[in-house]
Amino acid sequence: MTGRLDIVGLGPGGPEHRTAAATAAVRGAEVVIGYGPYVDQCADLLDVQVVVRGAMGEEAARADEALRRAAAGARVALVSSGDAGVHGMAARTLARAAELADDERPAIEVVPGVTAALAAGALLGAPLGDDFAALSLSDLHVSWDVVERRLTAVAAAGLALALYNPRSRTRMWQLERVLEVLREHRDAQTPVAVVTDAARPGQRVERATLATLDTEAVTMRSLLVVAGDSGRVAGEWLLAERGAGVPA
Amino acid sequence: MTGRLDIVGLGPGGPEHRTAAATAAVRGAEVVIGYGPYVDQCADLLDVQVVVRGAMGEEAARADEALRRAAAGARVALVSSGDAGVHGMAARTLARAAELADDERPAIEVVPGVTAALAAGALLGAPLGDDFAALSLSDLHVSWDVVERRLTAVAAAGLALALYNPRSRTRMWQLERVLEVLREHRDAQTPVAVVTDAARPGQRVERATLATLDTEAVTMRSLLVVAGDSGRVAGEWLLAERGAGVPA
Repeated sequence: MTGRLDIVGLGPGGPEHRTAAATAAVRGAEVVIGYGPYVDQCADLLDVQVVVRGAMGEEAARADEALRRAAAGARVALVSSGDAGVHGMAARTLARAAELADDERPAIEVVPGVTAALAAGALLGAPLGDDFAALSLSDLHVSWDVVERRLTAVAAAGLALALYNPRSRTRMWQLERVLEVLREHRDAQTPVAVVTDAARPGQRVERATLATLDTEAVTMRSLLVVAGDSGRVAGEWLLAERGAGVPA
Repeated sequence: MTGRLDIVGLGPGGPEHRTAAATAAVRGAEVVIGYGPYVDQCADLLDVQVVVRGAMGEEAARADEALRRAAAGARVALVSSGDAGVHGMAARTLARAAELADDERPAIEVVPGVTAALAAGALLGAPLGDDFAALSLSDLHVSWDVVERRLTAVAAAGLALALYNPRSRTRMWQLERVLEVLREHRDAQTPVAVVTDAARPGQRVERATLATLDTEAVTMRSLLVVAGDSGRVAGEWLLAERGAGVPA
């Protein structure tokens, strides 16, 4: 008998932005596995489940443990913040699952969630209402050249940007370079916003421009939004209406 | 006394991918306004609310009615499928709200939801696990040149693509042109997938490549996913692992 693995996106913060399917997957699991803070995010759903809290950097081990326990017959929920398919655990876990023999591979389902870009966007208004790109600024798995090349392409194309992992304890200079690259291709008055701890205690929103952004306001738990050609500040909101202000 | 307006993303289909906040906003509303099929999507939450079903093409009138009723004191939910901030009603509605005098503008909140790209991604595996762009192929509000210019930029940059509004009754030739543009910049064997009616009755997934995609499988309710540099087929899944297969 084989169990099953649900790879669950819990949404950005507390229970309010969690989907019914994510709630059901965690409640119905026998084993809940995740990076500690993500497990905490669904603490309200935990009672009899076995809970396995992992550390940062141990993602591969966590994926393997989830797969192994599910293949052994348990119903397992591997939880991520946001959407597990967007800079989360889903791709890595499925890649490892694909390498398993058929009889060692459990049934797997990915349960989508509200990713950070959508949560930040809703707080700001609708900055992603026209075409946008969601990029990670982390150079952990790709070279910095790749990060910069992709950033340049989407900045030059005038898309709005949702920038994940904008800064970490070990990546300090990169964000200044990102702003330089953006200013080479976009007006210095382009609105930007930093959303930190969206839908969590201590949620903060900082509004600025490419010229004025204080990179010190950006943390590991921030998402950076940069307006595209059609983006503008309207009253208290940052929004992007398709067709507004786009060069022909 | 002023009411309030919640601009609500209901997620892709039935209640399973709806967030708790979206459910609460619709249940707590006195007036629920939306394009007919979106209202149907939250029928399980409707009892005593006044329901206003709008038609396609009447988005501006719907936004104005929602704002007017909320400013007059009602608690209003303006509902969209997916996330209202992604090719939905939020930007347009906020733009109109920003033009109102302070005493005619209700309190407004945007409630994020699982957008079509995330729902389709979860069904396919994790094709958006690395950087991606979400583009609309509609030329209703921008010229086709703009659509093609943006598509070219992100295709050349090797990002995964989630393509909204890939086809409609009045836009038939454009999708063939999109495939041509993509094949100019990406290998013909690049995996693509068409997800139609995600999380709804009749949900369909078609897998193909840029060379083999049958555009007849694409409808108004489809989302088209195109793998990026790091995308690949692994077993039954389409996934993108950051750092896999990316040219240096």
